[in-house]
Order: sequence, then C-alpha cells, then structure tokens
Amino acid sequence: MENLVIKERLAKLRAKMQETGIDYYMMPTSDYHNSEYVADFFNVRAYFCGFNGSNGTLVVGKDWAGMWTDGRYFIQAEKQMEGTGVTLYRMLDAGVPTLTEYLQANMQKGEVLGFDGKVIATEIGKNLEKSLRKKEIEFKYSMDLADSVWTDRPALPCHDIYVLSDELCGKSYKDKLSDVRAAMAQNNTQQHILCKLDDIMWLTNLRGNDVECNPVALSYAFITMDEFFLFVQSAEVTDAVADYCKSNGIVLKDYHQFVSFLGEYKLKGDTLYDQRNVSYAVYKALLDNTEKSGYEIRNIEDPTELMKALKNETELKNIREVYLRDSAQLTKFIYWVKTNVGKIPMTEYSAAMKLDSMRAELPGFIELSFPTISAYGSNAAMMHYEATEDDYAEVKPEGMLLVDSGGTYMGGTTDVTRTIVLGKISDEIKHHYTATVVGMLQLANCNFLEGCYGRNVDIMARQPLWDLNIDYKCGTGHGIGYMLNVHEGPQNIRWRMRPGLEDAILEPGMIVSDEPGVYIEGSHGIRIENILEVVAGTCNGDGQFLHFNQLTYVPIDLEAIDTQYMQPKDIKALNDYHAEVYRRVEPLIEEPEIKEWLKEATRAI
Amino acid sequence: MENLVIKERLAKLRAKMQETGIDYYMMPTSDYHNSEYVADFFNVRAYFCGFNGSNGTLVVGKDWAGMWTDGRYFIQAEKQMEGTGVTLYRMLDAGVPTLTEYLQANMQKGEVLGFDGKVIATEIGKNLEKSLRKKEIEFKYSMDLADSVWTDRPALPCHDIYVLSDELCGKSYKDKLSDVRAAMAQNNTQQHILCKLDDIMWLTNLRGNDVECNPVALSYAFITMDEFFLFVQSAEVTDAVADYCKSNGIVLKDYHQFVSFLGEYKLKGDTLYDQRNVSYAVYKALLDNTEKSGYEIRNIEDPTELMKALKNETELKNIREVYLRDSAQLTKFIYWVKTNVGKIPMTEYSAAMKLDSMRAELPGFIELSFPTISAYGSNAAMMHYEATEDDYAEVKPEGMLLVDSGGTYMGGTTDVTRTIVLGKISDEIKHHYTATVVGMLQLANCNFLEGCYGRNVDIMARQPLWDLNIDYKCGTGHGIGYMLNVHEGPQNIRWRMRPGLEDAILEPGMIVSDEPGVYIEGSHGIRIENILEVVAGTCNGDGQFLHFNQLTYVPIDLEAIDTQYMQPKDIKALNDYHAEVYRRVEPLIEEPEIKEWLKEATRAI
Repeated sequence: MENLVIKERLAKLRAKMQETGIDYYMMPTSDYHNSEYVADFFNVRAYFCGFNGSNGTLVVGKDWAGMWTDGRYFIQAEKQMEGTGVTLYRMLDAGVPTLTEYLQANMQKGEVLGFDGKVIATEIGKNLEKSLRKKEIEFKYSMDLADSVWTDRPALPCHDIYVLSDELCGKSYKDKLSDVRAAMAQNNTQQHILCKLDDIMWLTNLRGNDVECNPVALSYAFITMDEFFLFVQSAEVTDAVADYCKSNGIVLKDYHQFVSFLGEYKLKGDTLYDQRNVSYAVYKALLDNTEKSGYEIRNIEDPTELMKALKNETELKNIREVYLRDSAQLTKFIYWVKTNVGKIPMTEYSAAMKLDSMRAELPGFIELSFPTISAYGSNAAMMHYEATEDDYAEVKPEGMLLVDSGGTYMGGTTDVTRTIVLGKISDEIKHHYTATVVGMLQLANCNFLEGCYGRNVDIMARQPLWDLNIDYKCGTGHGIGYMLNVHEGPQNIRWRMRPGLEDAILEPGMIVSDEPGVYIEGSHGIRIENILEVVAGTCNGDGQFLHFNQLTYVPIDLEAIDTQYMQPKDIKALNDYHAEVYRRVEPLIEEPEIKEWLKEATRAI
Repeated sequence: MENLVIKERLAKLRAKMQETGIDYYMMPTSDYHNSEYVADFFNVRAYFCGFNGSNGTLVVGKDWAGMWTDGRYFIQAEKQMEGTGVTLYRMLDAGVPTLTEYLQANMQKGEVLGFDGKVIATEIGKNLEKSLRKKEIEFKYSMDLADSVWTDRPALPCHDIYVLSDELCGKSYKDKLSDVRAAMAQNNTQQHILCKLDDIMWLTNLRGNDVECNPVALSYAFITMDEFFLFVQSAEVTDAVADYCKSNGIVLKDYHQFVSFLGEYKLKGDTLYDQRNVSYAVYKALLDNTEKSGYEIRNIEDPTELMKALKNETELKNIREVYLRDSAQLTKFIYWVKTNVGKIPMTEYSAAMKLDSMRAELPGFIELSFPTISAYGSNAAMMHYEATEDDYAEVKPEGMLLVDSGGTYMGGTTDVTRTIVLGKISDEIKHHYTATVVGMLQLANCNFLEGCYGRNVDIMARQPLWDLNIDYKCGTGHGIGYMLNVHEGPQNIRWRMRPGLEDAILEPGMIVSDEPGVYIEGSHGIRIENILEVVAGTCNGDGQFLHFNQLTYVPIDLEAIDTQYMQPKDIKALNDYHAEVYRRVEPLIEEPEIKEWLKEATRAI
C-alpha cells in the first residue's frame, strides 16, 4: 500500500531541493550535539520517511531516496517505510554499499550535496569532503530544508535547568573541571570546546529536560585554563542555576551565540575538540578563527567521556541501591503481568503504561530512561519496537512479552530487559531462551585481565547462540550514565566495531549492559538484559584480574528454561543468581502473595 | 656468580663505542629481513648478553646495559643473563618502560645512538627518530660494531636454493605474481620492494637453507609491472634454479647489490613497501631515489602476507596428510618415552634427539621447523626453553616432560606440543592440566562469524585458566607456513596486540595454532598445542559462520585429566577428539603394542 503522506512530504522536499539547487539532500539522526536520542524538533528523517528508530540516515535524490540503518532496526524500518518508495540499506550486510559508497557511485560530477551542517558531525562532513572530492561535489550545509517544508514542526525544546548537589554527584564541578584542565594541559591545548550534552551535564553537575528521556539541557561549553563559558537558552536559567553558576565561576552565555563567540574569541593556543561530537558547522567556524590565529585545532576524544564512564564511589553506592529498588519494581510488574494476563484487558501499550506508572511511584523518580519497549509475540523480533497508544498488539495468555525499560532516579539511571512467558511456548523457543540466558550469565560470570576490551569478552555472551548458528545483530553491551543517558561510552561490549564507534578498556567503576538475544522475524524475540559493574579481582604476577558484579536482580523466567541445553555450571550460575535475587529483592516486597511467587520464581532448578 | 665472558665482550664493545663516538648501541633480534629466526651470523644480541630467545633487544650504554623481551622469555632471560650485569626489562609488565621510553628518559641532549641500520626495521628507526628528536639525538646506523669485536663470528650463510614444483605448490609463480601485481595496481604503485624472506620464497616457489629451521634463502625482490628482479647470493644459484628463473622471467641479481640497485633504478611511479619488513638502511636508500624522482614510497602491508596465509586446496590437502603422519610419529614417540623412562638413560636432550630422528625417518622430511623444545619438570615453566648437548636435565619417571616440536616436509610444516606424564603428579598440576586441555578444546570447537579476529575468540582458550587467576603471557595462536616458517602472519589468536603486530580476520584456508598453557616458575609447565584449519560453516541471514577443523591428532595425556574440573561438554569434546585420534592414527601404526597402548590412551572417559 502506498504511503501517500510520506510521498507528499518527499515531493515538497524535492521541490525545495530544486529551488535551492540541491541534487541530494542528507538527513541524519542527530541534534546539534550528536545526541543519540533527539528532541522532536530534530526528527527530520522520521518526518520524511516514517522510520523512527534511534539510528538512521535518509538521503533524498531527484527520483530516488535511501535510508541506512543498523541491524537492530532492519525489521522495524522495513515495516515503517512500507509504501514510501524509500529503499532500505542494511548496514554491514554483505554487498550493501555504505552511504558514502552510494554517493560516490551515483552522484554526477559537479552535483550538489545539501545538508544542515549543524546536525552533521565533523568527522562525517570531513570524510564526505574527502570521498567526494574527485567528483567535485559542492556542499551546501547552511540550510535546513525541513524548516520550510515541515510546517507544523515542533519548537526547539526549552525547559528549566536544575542543579544536583555535590553530595549526590560524589564530586564537585570544580574538582571535575580541574581534571578536565589537566587533560587539556596534557594534550598541550589552551581551549576545549565541549558539545556533547551529557558530558556538559556531567561536568557541571547540572541537569535539564530538553531531550525525551535524557536529563540534559541544550548547551555548549567553552573551557579555557581560567574561564568556563556555558551556552544555554537563557529562558532555561532559573535563579538557583544562576546563583550556582555565579558562585562557581561559570559564565553563562546565550545558546544561539556559540558560533559567533567561536569566531571572535581571542585564542591563546591550540584548541581541543572531539570531531565526533562537534557539528560540521561549529567546526567550520572554529577552523576559521584558528586559521587566522595560527594555532591548531586538535581532534582528541573528549576527556570527559572516560571520566564520566568511571563512576565514583558515591555514584556506585547510589546506583547499586537504585538498581535494587528498580529491580523490585520490575519483579512486581512481572507478577502483575503473569497473574492478570487473560483476565483483564491487556495490550503492549497498557502493560508499558502500568510499568511506567509503577516506576513513577518510586522515590526519586525523574523520568523514564527511554520509552519502554513492550513487545508481544513476533513484535519482539523487532529489536527496538515501540508500541504506541494507537498501534499495539493485544497481550494474550500465550507466547511471551518482551519488556525493555528503565528509569532515571535521583541516584542513577537503570536499564533492564526481561522476556516474560505468558502461556505455552515451543521447544524451539525454550532452546533459544535457554541459550540466551546461558550467554548472559556466562559473560556476567567471566573473569578477564585488565587491558581487555569489550571485544575480548563479547563471545562469552554470544557463544551459546553462535553454536546454534544464530547471531543478534547488535552489540552485547553499552555503558550507562549516572542520572544521565541510558547509552554512554566509551566502553562497550561488541565483537566488531563500526568506524567511529568509541572504545575503551574495561576498568573497575564502569558499568555495562549484558543483553544477548534471539530475534526470529515473524516468530519471536527474546532478550535478557542485566547491568554489570566492572570490579577488581585478584592481582598477581599474571596481571590484575577483573570480573563483573550484578546490578540487576530480577527473576529470569524458569518456564522458558530447558536444562537439557545447560551444563551443570550454567545451572549453578542461574541458581546462584536467583538465590541472590530472592535474598535482595524479597525484603523490598510487602505483598505476601508476591513474596510467595518470588520464592517459586527464583527456586533452584 | 659473575659472567666474565659476557662482561669482557661488553667491555670490548664499549671501547669500540667510545672509539666511534657512540653513547648507546642497540642490538635487536633480526637479520636483514626482519626474520623471526636468524642465522648465527646475526646473533649479536645473544653474543653480548647470553640470552638466546627468539625475541629481545639489547641496548648498551657507557655503564649500563638493558635487554627487553616478552613474557615468553622472562624466566629464560633472567637465568641466561645472570651475572652479566645486564638488566632485564619485562615488556608489558606494569611500570616497566619501553625501550623508547628508556632512551627518552636517559639519553642526554645531543648524544649518539648507534645501530646497524640493516637489522633495524624502518618503522622502529622512524619511531626512534621521532621520539628522540627533542633530545637532538644523532643516529649512526651504517656500522655493525660486532664485526670488529666478535672475532670468531660465523659467516653469512650461503646454501643452495631449490625449486618446488607447481604441482606441490598448487599455484605457479606466474599466477602468484599476477595476484601481487593486481594488488600493486590497486594501490596505485608501479614498484614493490619485498624483503621478507618467506614471502619471497612463497611468491617464487623457491626454497633455501640460510636460516636454521626456515627453508628460506637470503634474498630481496624488486617487482615492477613487467619485471621481476631477485637478489640472491650468486653462489646459491644452481643450474636448475637458473633455468627455472630464466624460463619464468625472473632476473637474477647479486644479493649485495640491492641497495645500490635501489639508488639507481629509474622509478616509474610510486613504490609499495611494508615498513615492518624493510630495514632502515634499505628504506633510506629508497627514500633517496624516490625524493629525486618526485614519486612517493607507500607503506602498505606486503600483499603476499595475506595471500600466503590463505592456503590453496593443494596446500591444504598436503598439509592435512603431513599433519597426520607427523601426529602418528609423535604418538609413537610418546609411547617410547612412557615405556622407557626410568629404564634407559634419558635426558631432555636425548629425548629430543630421539624425536628428531623419528621425524627424519618420515618420507619427505626436510628439516625441523624449529629446534625441539624438550623441557622436564620445572624447566617446562620456561616457555621456549631449549636443552642442549651440554645443558640438560635428566628425565625421570616422575612429573612431566613438555615437548614442543615440528618438522618441515614436502607438503607442509608442522608444530605440536604435548606435555607427557611420566609418574606421580600433584592434584594442582592435574587441575592446571585439565584447564589447559579444556581451553584448547573450547577454542578448537567454537563457532564464530566471518569478520572475527583472533582477539574475538582468544578468550575461549584462556577462560578456564583466567577462572583460576592464571594467564599465559603470550598469544594463543599463530599462523604457520606451507613448507615455510613455523610462525607466520598476518592472522593470530591473542587477546591484546603489541604495536606493530600484524592482524587479520580469520578466513577459511588459514591455519592457526591453539596452544594455551600454564607456567609456574620453579614448579611446572604445561602446554597443549594443536593446529587448526579455519573452515566455513553455515551461511544464513546472520552471516557466514566459521569454525575450526583439527589438523593435529595426538593423544592428550589422560593421566593428568581430572574430570571434576570438566563440564559434560568438555568431557564429550575430549572423548570425541580421542575417538578421531584413534580412528585416524591407528592405521598409520604398525606395532601391535603401540596400537594397543593407543587404544587405551584414547579411551573415552
């Protein structure tokens, strides 16, 4: 069936392209800060092709349009773009050209590539310059064509900023700033532009509310050895924030003045910037000033990235508590689903609402850490499926419900997935489910040496599935912020890297997710996700051994476990985990019937 | 106890250094071709410090000397350098400076660093230039100081070259050359200098005998789009080789004329070279000519590296047969050791001689692929220990004998390690032994996706040991040549990379070793090494799955296996492996008593 809404939008865009002399127009998934989740204002790509996953780039030509996304979203993108005429390019699949390769092959000499330079990362812009140089492609990057076509475009978000206490953060802004300045000095730089929102929030101990589910304010920071300029929308600055900034030497400037400030500031030496997080438009402005000054701009990983990833003792203590309370709440939700399915009306969406409201009851709740994924039956095969008020499946007492969810609380941001058995399931599903659980626990229980990257341990989670010739086409794990973004770097657990992905050795104090899964299109989806803390173990002549401690304590559905697919060590690992779940979560539950159920749900097998 | 021999040599070297105005003199482990094993002529480092392992760099200052080596050799180097006054620097150990860091910290401004530029890889030379620039260190790289101090230095080796048939190689020199030229064209280069001996041998289908255990001739190759110049010592060229070269368009030139040829050749475009394999002296000569010509020299991995690693069907077929015959011979040797220990005089050295002579009996035997490691008791804790005619331990009917050995035959080069139980061993040793075997089999049996590097699967071998807080300080596996060097790249199986190490994704047709181990200084050493072939498995929507096939079929000593440290899957893996060993090796054994023993040695447990 044709999707006339999208087709009409694309026609208007193409008219605009012709008017402005643009042959191909590119729309990535980004705000002005390379954030993963972006405000509605920035959802240009979704507006023009229908696909609303968290990663994808749409390119529109005169009589062709293509959208590139990664393996998490192949199924979802195909469904959402049905009838739009937009071609799906499955990233990393054999024979599929990258976006750059496509443009190299299809753009004609001297044609014009258009994009909004504020939403394109510098690295991407520079790489495109290089790749398309031979074809003499002209770049027009100062126009946002959506502005005129998207008539009911939401406004740029603008919400109050708030201050977190040093006590809650475990480290003051001033102490963090001196660490950042030490890193600047180490890199022989005198200025540092910081554009990544969660990094700015982490550094300043401020939080905002400009991106759904991310407690961040739209902002830029300009750091020198004795000054700190924070660029935010002035309407977001409360009295408390103004006082805090004043007493801490933070000079507030208007968000929209950042680019012109960059052009005028008298540089005192080289400038540190991280080209992954700096937009092409900002980069071009900075480059201009730098070239005049005779200094250099140096592309270095934002020092805040690793500092932010290494949680301090206060953060870890709070995180452990928050995860436990969050685990107890999810446990109660699982009980609610299991006892009510088939008895009360239940949909993917209503179940998600129930869970969201249960989280909201917890003390210190701020917001969800991402929109709850509640996917029933074959919908769960779509890795990041999102049921909505208008588009959902009914939840019946058969098959399984996959729920991936989390919250941001005073004291931490959570993320957890359970796949809940609601009735009869096939032996094949039990096999897949058991292998997923074995993989999750195998990674969680593995020992490794300091110096290991996520790629060294990833196979511990994947092996039981690879043995079945099954792979989940995504990473196994990601870092998680402290009262911040649910996805953060630089560490990760994946077996191969995409260009531009961050990487870091696993170090004590980092937290990572452990979320293997099985996704069989049209049939079923399974994901089990726990969050792990990296901790130090034995240190001897062979090195510093590390391992993980669990942060998540939620029962794993024994109804889908078939011990014939487990080794004795796997059974022990599951029983040990369940014993800990019961020991820790039971005291947080008041209802005797849930206590009783939990005992059964965490029984040794 | 003082080592006066070494001290006297160092004193003479220091006198020479003073005479030539050199403050620090550096001696790596290399011939003129960055070969891993080098002819005696090149053993300058061993001559001046006593340590004769296969990796190490000695630096001598006025009143200090230091030697850097890797974890395989810490124990051996400490022992061999005792009393020499040379400090051991344990590479990658915490707090140990790298050689460059040491020189940066200790050399005074304007001092002189001396080395023989023909034995220093370009990359190392260039990195040193860069690192020591600030200190204005002068390089003197045209002198080999050992020449005058080492009065009884062996001559540069010079042995006949021989030709392998196209039938044996599976691919003619001409076909290989056109692949190389295609790679040159792809990289927009008109010339290619190839200095790595095994790559030159692979490409030309020639073999030589200038390096102990490596069937290679000292040589250089200069390749253009229509010419091929091979530089060898003219005394090595037999009539057959001259005929072969003539009929194949290979122009023979004198080995010692390579540098002057490079200076004179009229370049037609950019030149491809791999700076890891090109000596600093050759690089400087090429750079000179290139700068005059206005073309560039481009540092690109030798295209032959990967081509050589991907064995063709003929090679694989021959390799499988050769490994089976080699396995049968080692099996007989194990029987011989077990039945004779305590009954006849036996030493590490005599046992090695026995095995070496048994290999020499096999049809098509050319030479050992490396000097047999026969290490008894605590000597086995030294990873690359070598017993000699004068320095060996007696082998008694207690403890274990570790034997790491291999041969080059017409049809393949082998490498295999077994640790043989000779009498009572402790429960701790059984635990370590069992974990090593579990790790070896776990890697051998793992499934993985195309795109994986060795670092993705390394943990499969290491995990059982890491769970005991034990690590072996070396890689898990290396590639192996076809009638060539026992260590070859670019693939490897290790969890972390040293700078400069090659790397490649694992692809069908590659062969790799799988050799976990436990090395407890002063107590015991265990290593079990099988060789694996990468083969394609299922290909589905999730990708191309790969796995390994075994090439090695030698019993694993059940006397050291304790099933309490194994999961059922581990026991099954061992039983399955042993069933295959029996099925394949038994027909190659004639002696009824060995057949009988083999049946027992490969019984299901």
